[in-house]
Amino acid sequence: MKALVYDGPGRRSWTEVPHPTILDPRDAIIRVDAVTICGTDLHILGGDVPEVRPGRVLGHEAVGTVVEVGDGVTDRSVGDRVLVSCISACGTCRYCREGSYGQCLGGGGWILGHTVDGVQAEYARVPFADLSTYRLPASVSDEAAVLLADILPTSYEVGVRNGQVAPGDTVVIVGAGPIGLAAILTAKLFSPAHIVVVDKAPSRLEAAKQFGADVTVAAEQDPLAVVRELTGGLGADVAIEAVGTPGTFELCATLVRPGGRVANVGVHGRPATLHLEDLWIRNVTITTGLVDTNTTPRLLDMLVAGQLDTGHLVTHRFPLAEIMRAYDVFASPAETGALKVLLSRS
Amino acid sequence: MKALVYDGPGRRSWTEVPHPTILDPRDAIIRVDAVTICGTDLHILGGDVPEVRPGRVLGHEAVGTVVEVGDGVTDRSVGDRVLVSCISACGTCRYCREGSYGQCLGGGGWILGHTVDGVQAEYARVPFADLSTYRLPASVSDEAAVLLADILPTSYEVGVRNGQVAPGDTVVIVGAGPIGLAAILTAKLFSPAHIVVVDKAPSRLEAAKQFGADVTVAAEQDPLAVVRELTGGLGADVAIEAVGTPGTFELCATLVRPGGRVANVGVHGRPATLHLEDLWIRNVTITTGLVDTNTTPRLLDMLVAGQLDTGHLVTHRFPLAEIMRAYDVFASPAETGALKVLLSRS
Repeated sequence: MKALVYDGPGRRSWTEVPHPTILDPRDAIIRVDAVTICGTDLHILGGDVPEVRPGRVLGHEAVGTVVEVGDGVTDRSVGDRVLVSCISACGTCRYCREGSYGQCLGGGGWILGHTVDGVQAEYARVPFADLSTYRLPASVSDEAAVLLADILPTSYEVGVRNGQVAPGDTVVIVGAGPIGLAAILTAKLFSPAHIVVVDKAPSRLEAAKQFGADVTVAAEQDPLAVVRELTGGLGADVAIEAVGTPGTFELCATLVRPGGRVANVGVHGRPATLHLEDLWIRNVTITTGLVDTNTTPRLLDMLVAGQLDTGHLVTHRFPLAEIMRAYDVFASPAETGALKVLLSRS
Repeated sequence: MKALVYDGPGRRSWTEVPHPTILDPRDAIIRVDAVTICGTDLHILGGDVPEVRPGRVLGHEAVGTVVEVGDGVTDRSVGDRVLVSCISACGTCRYCREGSYGQCLGGGGWILGHTVDGVQAEYARVPFADLSTYRLPASVSDEAAVLLADILPTSYEVGVRNGQVAPGDTVVIVGAGPIGLAAILTAKLFSPAHIVVVDKAPSRLEAAKQFGADVTVAAEQDPLAVVRELTGGLGADVAIEAVGTPGTFELCATLVRPGGRVANVGVHGRPATLHLEDLWIRNVTITTGLVDTNTTPRLLDMLVAGQLDTGHLVTHRFPLAEIMRAYDVFASPAETGALKVLLSRS
């Protein structure tokens, strides 16, 4: 079968690899019906995630059909149409028992396309299939469902909930890629007063407005001046970092008011400077986090109920075999206007 | 009258200054009966708090007697024996209404010995006297009460409560000065499993054991190895930074487990490095903060009820006129064994 393989920093190939097999009784083998590319995959290709070794099949967001299950899988059957989550979970370690599946100590966590082969492939092995997949109702399309594999729970849990977005808040989101846009969608659930979005790309700021941002800050504007103007000089209640660079993180730390929260969502490859000489006195809370996906069932319910309008997140669609080209499109959003790109089994 | 005046970085004097007068109807004039020196005063002398201008009377922790009140003071009278808190509060701004008195926008916050003259003096003007002072019961000594001006609420609110110390937790406290020791006292209220204290000075580690730390880590030991050994390799649930240097902050960030909390209490004059390339995936929460003192009344109740054994925090006692010598003693704890030093009206 074919898969998208990481060949070391900056290099990838769509190439023949062995068909996955059951290695543990809790595994399932999934035929991949739809899969996306994540900003994290670009961070991997950029060398920001050195745990990913050359030869690894990338990808951690898919919808598929179960084609084989191990003897220990009790709640999934051959033929089931499932969401494959970016987070796998043993279900029994101390973190899983607390619902912190992202920090699973039992061999789960973010493993797909990271420490085990991922889902940008014709078939994939999914460990702990009972907890790492979600059966999908027929009313949810592959295109909508695949957004629940990572970006919706990540933006919701690591951005909006860690940032404690509350009614009336002024929320700044730095970075209007798919995660930033999904953060707009899920922040709106808490009725903030303002959603301010900062990005360099005019096309992404346009998208941010479509998703519900009421203020956008372009490259030539000063975000601090905009936010202070909106907040009587105080600063934002919440700043969500959705890029993953030292500069954008440091910007978030300057944009929050005393008592405000900085929720880091971005994947970082380098340290940032924390200006404690200013922050020590300001009652600021900074959170980091990998998604736990403990909200995925509830987000799926909201998707079914029409509470989350994800209709504009997928901008480009390709057959799976054209994933090399899809990466090029996804990696050049300023030229292509790409948000999420969807690869489908043809 | 005489007062301890900041003369610029590294310089101070006990010198004649004008007697304070009522400047605002909400002011009171306090005769200082007992006062202490804070690690923050040393940070000021070290140049870490550049807002403090030469000529400023230092000090923000005192017990005194009201000798004059402005027309707007309704709840304090001449003759009242009061605690003067490090935090003054207008009581009406948005932060005060939320109990975040440390962030007061109405002219309060940490102002004494910072932006207005402080309490290391024979007399002091205390703004917003109704909210910035606490009437003291006769059963509480000056020596016990003065610890409520700053170090007990600071260690409790900014360290223990921001760090969300919970039963069974492993809590690491970096720095066993007065704030670190008060953090031990107040962390114990939440029944942690282990309190690990890291300091370079053997005398302070001895004090930490007296206050209730069960594990101490000396200069020649590796704190990470000690904490991992205690926690099955995971790391601490909470790390409380009680020094105020980049290195001790960065140490705290390495000592916490995935999902752990770093509560910064130290006063910082320089930025620290935040290793987001490690932390982005670890679900870590970092808090900073100036004390709000919204727990001061409750801490006073606990002191009266005998729930807080502060008996070992004051190690040296001087007449107020000897405050220059007291600073020397306080600034050299390795030689003197000093924790808090108490200056009393003679």
